[in-house]
Amino acid sequence: MPINNLVKTPGQWLMGEGPQSDIVLSSRVRLARNLARHHFVGRVSDTEKREIADEVRDALSTTSSGKDLLYCDLEPMTSLERRFLVERHLISREQERGGGARGVAVNKDETVAIMVNEEDHLRMQGIMSGMQLHETFSAIDKLDDELSTVLDYAYDDKLGYLTACPTNVGTGMRVSVMLHLPGLVMTRHIEKAFRAVHDHRLTVRGLYGEGTEAQGELYQISNQITIGRSETEIIEDLRSMMDGVIEYERKSRERLMEVDAAKVEDRVWRAYATLQHARVISSEEAMSHLSSVRLGVCLGILPKIDMHTINQVFVYTQPAHLQRVEGRELEAEARDVARAGYIREKLKGEGKVN
Amino acid sequence: MPINNLVKTPGQWLMGEGPQSDIVLSSRVRLARNLARHHFVGRVSDTEKREIADEVRDALSTTSSGKDLLYCDLEPMTSLERRFLVERHLISREQERGGGARGVAVNKDETVAIMVNEEDHLRMQGIMSGMQLHETFSAIDKLDDELSTVLDYAYDDKLGYLTACPTNVGTGMRVSVMLHLPGLVMTRHIEKAFRAVHDHRLTVRGLYGEGTEAQGELYQISNQITIGRSETEIIEDLRSMMDGVIEYERKSRERLMEVDAAKVEDRVWRAYATLQHARVISSEEAMSHLSSVRLGVCLGILPKIDMHTINQVFVYTQPAHLQRVEGRELEAEARDVARAGYIREKLKGEGKVN
Repeated sequence: MPINNLVKTPGQWLMGEGPQSDIVLSSRVRLARNLARHHFVGRVSDTEKREIADEVRDALSTTSSGKDLLYCDLEPMTSLERRFLVERHLISREQERGGGARGVAVNKDETVAIMVNEEDHLRMQGIMSGMQLHETFSAIDKLDDELSTVLDYAYDDKLGYLTACPTNVGTGMRVSVMLHLPGLVMTRHIEKAFRAVHDHRLTVRGLYGEGTEAQGELYQISNQITIGRSETEIIEDLRSMMDGVIEYERKSRERLMEVDAAKVEDRVWRAYATLQHARVISSEEAMSHLSSVRLGVCLGILPKIDMHTINQVFVYTQPAHLQRVEGRELEAEARDVARAGYIREKLKGEGKVN
Repeated sequence: MPINNLVKTPGQWLMGEGPQSDIVLSSRVRLARNLARHHFVGRVSDTEKREIADEVRDALSTTSSGKDLLYCDLEPMTSLERRFLVERHLISREQERGGGARGVAVNKDETVAIMVNEEDHLRMQGIMSGMQLHETFSAIDKLDDELSTVLDYAYDDKLGYLTACPTNVGTGMRVSVMLHLPGLVMTRHIEKAFRAVHDHRLTVRGLYGEGTEAQGELYQISNQITIGRSETEIIEDLRSMMDGVIEYERKSRERLMEVDAAKVEDRVWRAYATLQHARVISSEEAMSHLSSVRLGVCLGILPKIDMHTINQVFVYTQPAHLQRVEGRELEAEARDVARAGYIREKLKGEGKVN
């Protein structure tokens, strides 16, 4: 399976690099595109679905940015393999659950991924570490431009790009950032922050998108409006709002350390110690402790631990990743043991303590 | 204050020495005695109470075993100092709360302590590490014999020693062992074990005696019967019953490791890690983790940690000990911070891990 190659190294978006990477895990831009001479995915036959997939794969092979992408055909995959791609943020849960010919084309460092036959014929995703919305958009915009020379996109001069769901019509663009907000959670200001976010017609979701609860105090914030504003304006709107949230998070962290440093240090050290020594741990507990450890490193409470390591563990302790790493299927109880072992191994040698 | 000397080193009973010291923390023998020509403590005037205290102190100074004892007068002490002696198992909570002339005479390693004007005029205690009931009795019996040559004990040829409470009449002896029973607690067999103990007319209490809840899975088991049997018979009764409980605990530990080693290891390592790294910790939580660590060392899960260290931390993290160690009075919140610091310091270097 081509996805075996993906197991070894995490995607670039987990690198903990880029501006504001202490708070901004990743920036993501997604463009929805459809082929003019085909029905929308929700209405196609199996045959037409196959035709669409083939057309897109052909188009990719003829463009300079597209030809190096690794195409993963989801149809023959096991459910565990598909789940792995979801955990990796390469496909959506909708595409995981869907049927028929569908796939995802991924570049080497996973900064670009094109889902084929998800809700739309093409969903092009750019994702990068830290606050890099413009850079992410540039990468995906270039690919989009190239593909538009070989694919006939469904486009209306007045409305813009036509999409299966009206909420995506226009630019077809969804821009989001993944934020780590433990300070706002601990100071109980998170609801207030999110009310302001909602007032700006932005949406808040958890690490794994729509309908998933926020775990590890990670929140994905994205635009709702896709029409009536340019791509650059949409990005700038989100970015300026996010600057405010990031500042609010920074102030909350400072406040926490002023008011009750012992409590924060206690939480951070306990989390770190538990991750270093637990023999059985659930995904939820692991994420909660990882969040504390991430905060502890940012605040200088813990010895330096590579942000890349922490970000990676968030994803690699998810069930499918864990089973890929272990090389076998594991029941829930065995996963909890394997997860604890994986975390101990990853944190070994990181930030030596007494 | 003479008790300043006590702070530095813990009593011998915390040494973790002696037979079965993996399960038996300590053995204790207490003799109740009263002076024939005085009212019982419950009925004395302040003046008579003072006379009794003086008579006992005089008697002690004339006997070879008694003259080296350190006499601590409880009357002028602060409540914190009295609490310190309770935590140390040198005086009872009843004597702590009482009024008027009263005190405790203690030998250097704290294996012998004589409370004066507690419920009875004299309550002589012998306490030693591990299962050493006979040795403990010998030590206190020798002192009792010597004192009987200079003090006129209230004694009835038919009933034996006369005491304030009828339940102590006869030998005036209470024999107890302090057991660490995490295996029975974890396998949920503790209630069954205690039913058998009660059937043998033995009493179960917590680390700090009557009315205190069992913390740290430490249980004090003692005889109820003081009349109709000789001292040696009472000791043998308790000992043979305790052999059964100890065996039951050992089997429970073995069973735990056979059935769910990962769960036990997880509990032990988390406890150890938490104690090594927490910045704020309550007495209850500390005792619970210490119990797990003690079990982990016995089962070979943790690297070797001196049993003496663990036993000592059980006592030195109690509120009054903690404040003595810190050399100042502390509010509850500050105690939780100081306690965490004390434990980290004590466990530093003990049992190095990855």
